[in-house]
Amino acid sequence: MAYEARHMKWWGWGYEDAEFHARRHPHFWPYAKSVLDIETDDWPRREWTLKSIELPEAHMDEPFLAKLRSFLAPSQITHDAKERVIHSYGKGFRDLFRLRRGIAAGAPDVIVYPESERDVCLTLRAAAERDVVLIPFGGGSNIAGCLERIDARRLCVSLDMRRMRRVLAADQRSFTAQIEAGVFGPDLEEQLRAHGMTLGHFPDSFLHSTLGGWIATRSAGMQSDKYGKIEDMVIAVRMVSPEGVLRTRVVPKSSNGIDVNHLCIGSEGTLGVITEATMRVHDLPESRQVRGYLFPEFEGGIEAMHECVSQECMPAMVRLNDPDKTALSLAFRPPTSGFSKIAGSLFKTYLRAKGFAQPRMCLMLTAFEGRLRGVSRRVQQAEAIYKKCGAVGLGAGAGKSFEATKYDFPHIRDFLLDRNVTTDVSETATVWSNIAKLYGDTTAVLRAEISQTGVRPWAGCHISHTYTCGASLYFTFGFRQQPGREMEQYLQVKRAVQQSFIDHGATLSHHHAVGTEHLPWLSADISPVGVRAVSAVKQGLDPSNIMNPGRLLPSSTPLEDCMTAGSALRSTDALKK
Amino acid sequence: MAYEARHMKWWGWGYEDAEFHARRHPHFWPYAKSVLDIETDDWPRREWTLKSIELPEAHMDEPFLAKLRSFLAPSQITHDAKERVIHSYGKGFRDLFRLRRGIAAGAPDVIVYPESERDVCLTLRAAAERDVVLIPFGGGSNIAGCLERIDARRLCVSLDMRRMRRVLAADQRSFTAQIEAGVFGPDLEEQLRAHGMTLGHFPDSFLHSTLGGWIATRSAGMQSDKYGKIEDMVIAVRMVSPEGVLRTRVVPKSSNGIDVNHLCIGSEGTLGVITEATMRVHDLPESRQVRGYLFPEFEGGIEAMHECVSQECMPAMVRLNDPDKTALSLAFRPPTSGFSKIAGSLFKTYLRAKGFAQPRMCLMLTAFEGRLRGVSRRVQQAEAIYKKCGAVGLGAGAGKSFEATKYDFPHIRDFLLDRNVTTDVSETATVWSNIAKLYGDTTAVLRAEISQTGVRPWAGCHISHTYTCGASLYFTFGFRQQPGREMEQYLQVKRAVQQSFIDHGATLSHHHAVGTEHLPWLSADISPVGVRAVSAVKQGLDPSNIMNPGRLLPSSTPLEDCMTAGSALRSTDALKK
Repeated sequence: MAYEARHMKWWGWGYEDAEFHARRHPHFWPYAKSVLDIETDDWPRREWTLKSIELPEAHMDEPFLAKLRSFLAPSQITHDAKERVIHSYGKGFRDLFRLRRGIAAGAPDVIVYPESERDVCLTLRAAAERDVVLIPFGGGSNIAGCLERIDARRLCVSLDMRRMRRVLAADQRSFTAQIEAGVFGPDLEEQLRAHGMTLGHFPDSFLHSTLGGWIATRSAGMQSDKYGKIEDMVIAVRMVSPEGVLRTRVVPKSSNGIDVNHLCIGSEGTLGVITEATMRVHDLPESRQVRGYLFPEFEGGIEAMHECVSQECMPAMVRLNDPDKTALSLAFRPPTSGFSKIAGSLFKTYLRAKGFAQPRMCLMLTAFEGRLRGVSRRVQQAEAIYKKCGAVGLGAGAGKSFEATKYDFPHIRDFLLDRNVTTDVSETATVWSNIAKLYGDTTAVLRAEISQTGVRPWAGCHISHTYTCGASLYFTFGFRQQPGREMEQYLQVKRAVQQSFIDHGATLSHHHAVGTEHLPWLSADISPVGVRAVSAVKQGLDPSNIMNPGRLLPSSTPLEDCMTAGSALRSTDALKK
Repeated sequence: MAYEARHMKWWGWGYEDAEFHARRHPHFWPYAKSVLDIETDDWPRREWTLKSIELPEAHMDEPFLAKLRSFLAPSQITHDAKERVIHSYGKGFRDLFRLRRGIAAGAPDVIVYPESERDVCLTLRAAAERDVVLIPFGGGSNIAGCLERIDARRLCVSLDMRRMRRVLAADQRSFTAQIEAGVFGPDLEEQLRAHGMTLGHFPDSFLHSTLGGWIATRSAGMQSDKYGKIEDMVIAVRMVSPEGVLRTRVVPKSSNGIDVNHLCIGSEGTLGVITEATMRVHDLPESRQVRGYLFPEFEGGIEAMHECVSQECMPAMVRLNDPDKTALSLAFRPPTSGFSKIAGSLFKTYLRAKGFAQPRMCLMLTAFEGRLRGVSRRVQQAEAIYKKCGAVGLGAGAGKSFEATKYDFPHIRDFLLDRNVTTDVSETATVWSNIAKLYGDTTAVLRAEISQTGVRPWAGCHISHTYTCGASLYFTFGFRQQPGREMEQYLQVKRAVQQSFIDHGATLSHHHAVGTEHLPWLSADISPVGVRAVSAVKQGLDPSNIMNPGRLLPSSTPLEDCMTAGSALRSTDALKK
């Protein structure tokens, strides 16, 4: 096999040999210390070994395993301890916190690596016969609690899709490609590049997530402004459900009743396993321009984004940081060379002269790509808008720096976790007319809630993924942990920000999925009748509830239980039989 | 009430005072006679009176009616014979043919005009209590058999939504408008215009169809190339189902599990009544350019459409007629003035010199609209492409002529029905790489199948609604009726064209819905597991099957029965109790 996607480290983001190096970002730690009220530099380096993990004994069901062995090769089935730990959770704060405390209650009993749709079908059939739970697993990057086992009593298989990674066909005339669902971002783009094409889907998790995962969670890439969210790219799907294979036709649009593509998209593994999809793809862009701008304040930046939408001059990507997120971004930037230091200092003088005040200044990053002429025209048009809204251009340098580090941001969290700092994100979307209020109120709620837990709050936000009628707001927050109350503290804050989204008419998530983290707000978001409809589909395609149970269907348990489902704090004993 | 949408005539398309006037289109009838082998001009003018209709006696259920009267005003409930006939069918060939033969087996027993969501809710509750069937009715323009009563045994109410017609709110900053579902096209656009906005949805049925109908059937407007299909415009919906009101939030995009908007869109009245939707709207265009072009042959026109897609230079509307549809369009055009006759004749000489042969020549109509600068640029770019593909511009005159008559085309069918000619349409969508084959094969199938019935075939096609990965193919066909075998003849032809779509990997309909006409192909289109999923949603939201039964769920009855469901030819007696 040409490409085998490596697993991420179980204790954090990224490969085992990748991490955040403070010396490459010398401004970051001083910044974090100052905004989070941290005094010490004395943090012991932890070596993470599997020995620290209390792994529940694996359930065994010999008839089931014998059946698996009858159609799978030995290399496709494993009970290896490390594999079980890796497949126990996604990469949310709760996930990493639990594993770092030795809790792996979410671990599956068996991991299966299907290599064909037939493998998937037979595994589902075997599972249905023995009441075995299946959890589809792509890259394991989910942060909403989509991947952990909820029910300790039933045997649980993690179905790791990474070996189904081929681009099966590319139709260059129709701009479509038929792709197996287990392919990772870089592998997919490399295969498409051979046909001169790109999917144009670059989520922050790009290095560590798969096509099937993107579809199952309604993912958004950085360039959704141009290419759409993943749901806008799906032309046809194949999904193996316990009731058989749901497949749709490769047609651009249809009026064939309820669009069943949209039953697979966003299904979060609860209805079946997405094995392949035919996706809308694009010519590789002739030109790509990534640039940075500074706005004297957030409002001007929002106005500029809105004006681009009004003038039908949307970039492929636009990310507007609020003042705190701007400060974080500047602290994160690599050290500057001697020359650029001088230039930077001159630039600061210039900004001061123009009336830019550091505490209110906002960094915007944009990317324009496509045909050469179109890109030039759009950049010109957008820059005129930005200028009118008070922006100062930072040129391509800021863009280059963003490009070089755009997938590195999640590493910060591990670095801070090592230093007893909780960080997490919550993101939503709303219409333009509601952005300012949602932003202001939610930021205030976040800060107040963190303060209430007795520590200094840090909260920042960026706006990205613009649409004709609105955009996504992405909140990042961090605070020192209160020893012994870490999870309680986290839940209190997370709950407050999610509740603020819902109270303001926004949605529970723009692209991170429902999982267990956001389940308490699903009914408020899509209405109880909406939940009933989803529940009916589940009943129809998975009557025995073997597919990723506990997702998408709010139980009658109170919110508290939903948030801690899969035992955030329960001892692993409680999950043992 | 400021605007009351009138009903269409029951025996044909459009208002009672509108029809096709042969003298305004002097070339049409000679053309039709020649291509359909018709010799006589002696067709008696029929006067359509209700007396000719054998209207089944209305079921009565006094407790149900008493309940209705308890919350509805007398003007909201009627059993009037004419109203029952008007609400008995849509406007498909089978519908008009039956009514013109006096068959109104599809007639509801009662028509209810709700004026609020509360009226709808209470009507549904009353219906559920008494096992009464409800069929939501917008403009009654559907041609796929979405509107007729299938089951003669249960009391049937047609829920005519036209009084719920208000634009409730327009959010100009967010480009959204919250709109009641019963509003008709012209009324909606007039209300939006007061806010400087447009929905941009102009289906051929625009004058006689409603927002709710568009959503329930996944309609496409002429300008879908720019504004999208209706499913791309829906931001949020409210749908009253027997299990309660499904409502979604006004957010641009979300990752909240399965997108339940897409359970309402395309539900064809089977899950509930769509009472309102928040739609994406647009600034009124600064500029609009409608133009005509002639291509020496169909292939060049297709190439031009594809190249526009490749260069991201799509018009708002593009319609490429094949040679036969071109001939029909030219025959349909109003008489030319003396001057333009001379100009036309000079133009013909010019075309001949350029190597255009009448039998292969293809007419393309395009519209570009939006901001002034963008429109000019796009027109220029597109015209360069068209020219490269061999086209000759007809200028704005052809565009004007199209604009003046664009909603008149359906009147031709009534005129031809009066002359014992069957005409109908079948449309589909496919990817670019499949268009030529699907077009060639389906046209051949159509002609062969019509010939087999013993008459001379006429079949034409236009390609429209372009997308990155494909387009819609819209076939029109006509032939002389074989007396006594009219329906059989129609079914044979219709079946052949639909089967050709499915055999070629295309979809059963691009924008006309499934209804009863296309139901036999639903399972092939969305797969049996897809049908099972739809069936599960139906079971979840409408467990008593009171909402528009017989749609979206293929029964186990053979194709023949599905196609003739609602008794195409059965006597009305068979439907009586």
